[in-house]
Amino acid sequence: MAASSMRPRQTKGERTRRRIVEHAAVLFNTLGVAGASMADVSEAAGLEKGGVYNHFESKDALALAAFDYASGLVLERIEAAVAAHEDGWSQLLAILDVYRDVVRKPFIAGGCPLLNTAVESDDTSPALRSRARLALDRWRSVIVEAVDRAAAQGDLAAGDAEALSSMTIAAIEGGVMLARVYRDPAHIERVATELARYFTTYRSSHSPG
Amino acid sequence: MAASSMRPRQTKGERTRRRIVEHAAVLFNTLGVAGASMADVSEAAGLEKGGVYNHFESKDALALAAFDYASGLVLERIEAAVAAHEDGWSQLLAILDVYRDVVRKPFIAGGCPLLNTAVESDDTSPALRSRARLALDRWRSVIVEAVDRAAAQGDLAAGDAEALSSMTIAAIEGGVMLARVYRDPAHIERVATELARYFTTYRSSHSPG
Repeated sequence: MAASSMRPRQTKGERTRRRIVEHAAVLFNTLGVAGASMADVSEAAGLEKGGVYNHFESKDALALAAFDYASGLVLERIEAAVAAHEDGWSQLLAILDVYRDVVRKPFIAGGCPLLNTAVESDDTSPALRSRARLALDRWRSVIVEAVDRAAAQGDLAAGDAEALSSMTIAAIEGGVMLARVYRDPAHIERVATELARYFTTYRSSHSPG
Repeated sequence: MAASSMRPRQTKGERTRRRIVEHAAVLFNTLGVAGASMADVSEAAGLEKGGVYNHFESKDALALAAFDYASGLVLERIEAAVAAHEDGWSQLLAILDVYRDVVRKPFIAGGCPLLNTAVESDDTSPALRSRARLALDRWRSVIVEAVDRAAAQGDLAAGDAEALSSMTIAAIEGGVMLARVYRDPAHIERVATELARYFTTYRSSHSPG
């Protein structure tokens, strides 16, 4: 019996809740949490005005659920790409490939939810800021593990994995910002190429190629 | 006669307008344009409710003036730091020093107005997005000129100045995002150090030191 057929069917309430979260994620990611109202979410989800309050007690609660959903789209794709490789060096490059692919396969409308939420929440919502940090922690761990693996495999000279992870995430997110504000994906392509160039500064001298 | 004494005195209206812009810049940079109301700005500037409308016809018009003021604080500091050096290589490093200094000398409360405005405006306000692009263009020009100068002076191997400027701005702005969401300036210090490391990949092999 396939695993999917063993999953209990979602109730109507669960399906509605899921639909609300998906629409809220898009609205908050494009307009910002402050820029989209609960009425906007109700309308987008095809509910009567105020219908969303039957499922979420507040906009804050919905914003957290929407962020968890949206950030999951990003992190699951990164983790799957990394899991497809055995060696740490290839894993680092796989993260850059996910990033390049974002141009034709966006995670969600409105850009990167980690960037958008971090920037919007830093002075306004401690709960959302904390959630953004957790998502970034998860991404940093993926990079740190890849760096440690590459070092253990002799492909990277012992480097500062935390420094490399800060730099990689910073450049990737800043590149998304540039690509979106200029409506020009060339910034993402450039940043991916320059990050690969930067990675080589940590490449072990006795590494092949 | 000093130049300052030749400047015509500001009228009361001009001083009030300036005060509105300064307070709006802080509010919009911390809470976002969507997150701060015109009433908030009036109150912060010590005006009666609605008083701000005597000086700005709309929130959109005020948001543009506030961004011009806030982005000017950033760009003037970068341009002054670069102008203090003759050679292109030192100019590139001077930009990193401005960035490190941001931790103890912020331009304005709420983080980098270029990042905040780019992220908030990309799907919501074409006028503000266009203004954010102009500010980023000005910064990119500073970097491209420094790279071209360093190449002409033999300190940089001929590199792609556009790629280097995208990477530098992306990493700097992404590093601000990380430092703010984690409340940890270590991310800025790391990114500055890693950018200097990245710059060395373009260092001419016959360059001294």
